[in-house]
Amino acid sequence: MKILLIGASGTIGRPVSEHLRRRHDVVSAGRTSGDLQVDLSSSDSILQMYKEAGLLDAVVCIAGEAKWGPFESLSEADFHIGLNHKLMGQVNLVRLGTVALCSGGSFTLSTGILADDPVCQTSSAALVNGALHSFVRAVALELRNGQRINAVSLGLVEDAVAKYERYFPGHNPVPMSKAVNAYLKSIEGHQTGSVIRCYENS
Amino acid sequence: MKILLIGASGTIGRPVSEHLRRRHDVVSAGRTSGDLQVDLSSSDSILQMYKEAGLLDAVVCIAGEAKWGPFESLSEADFHIGLNHKLMGQVNLVRLGTVALCSGGSFTLSTGILADDPVCQTSSAALVNGALHSFVRAVALELRNGQRINAVSLGLVEDAVAKYERYFPGHNPVPMSKAVNAYLKSIEGHQTGSVIRCYENS
Repeated sequence: MKILLIGASGTIGRPVSEHLRRRHDVVSAGRTSGDLQVDLSSSDSILQMYKEAGLLDAVVCIAGEAKWGPFESLSEADFHIGLNHKLMGQVNLVRLGTVALCSGGSFTLSTGILADDPVCQTSSAALVNGALHSFVRAVALELRNGQRINAVSLGLVEDAVAKYERYFPGHNPVPMSKAVNAYLKSIEGHQTGSVIRCYENS
Repeated sequence: MKILLIGASGTIGRPVSEHLRRRHDVVSAGRTSGDLQVDLSSSDSILQMYKEAGLLDAVVCIAGEAKWGPFESLSEADFHIGLNHKLMGQVNLVRLGTVALCSGGSFTLSTGILADDPVCQTSSAALVNGALHSFVRAVALELRNGQRINAVSLGLVEDAVAKYERYFPGHNPVPMSKAVNAYLKSIEGHQTGSVIRCYENS
């Protein structure tokens, strides 16, 4: 498969990319690194990326920003960071990507455990993830030509524990191998309209 | 209780309002009707409404637009209608309303079954509802002074069947009395961070 992977250099994107490269052709995209550059908050940038990438078998996004902070200090503009970047960035990847994706091709978006099991300071990030969970279920009803769409929702992954564990009291880290598998399930499997949850529940 | 009810003249708002008025002081707000006027898509308008309403025991929103349409025809601007109105309108009701709400007061937002069980043409509306479900869970962790927040998620209600049933094949209508009860559970009950689902599942 020819797979466009947005966010291939991140904490989760890197191991997913390494795994996919063993048997697929991976075109990497990122804000500043990768084969192609893309600004997820810009439809024009997304269109340009698709033009350069050519016909694809899978589009995988492991990128997207949202602002964290105490609810009482988040401004309306702070909420719009997540809406414009992680949320509409991924919605636009699908809106603009159906013509770049072959019949039977798949979209895999990234969300996260905050949609289901939030922690303090994540009202904006949780909102974005929950939005994408419902979006994926809804849009799967309307995709044509066998095109599929799923979201991968990971818990706090092992490689991010040092940076984020203070925000996630009692959350059990998800092994990176399980995180990679969640993406493989969406990309190489046949399901659609799913939220693939990968949590180590306590 | 003194209850601010936004959307008091709608299909669901009217019976909720009638029920609440039996034992509470209801201040109604709407775009063009009610005791107070408010444009949910404008923070300034929301602030002005709160200023006129005074101190409140409960804020209930049964309003909010999102654009319906086939996914392939929805533009980025179409998605922003739902983001700016039903989604950020309700987020801003909470952001700007904590100072207008007494200790122990409650916010009740409105979402809908599309978050969990979408139908065609609802990718934007489903997204907005799912966003609010996760937002409510997250923000409940951070509200102070015993303030509560819940969302009511109704299925297709009986009084909307004539208008919407063609979009909802096989959905069982929710009796209006159950719809009203879902709001009472949030307003007069003690729970917080809940999505109160009121579906007649098939």
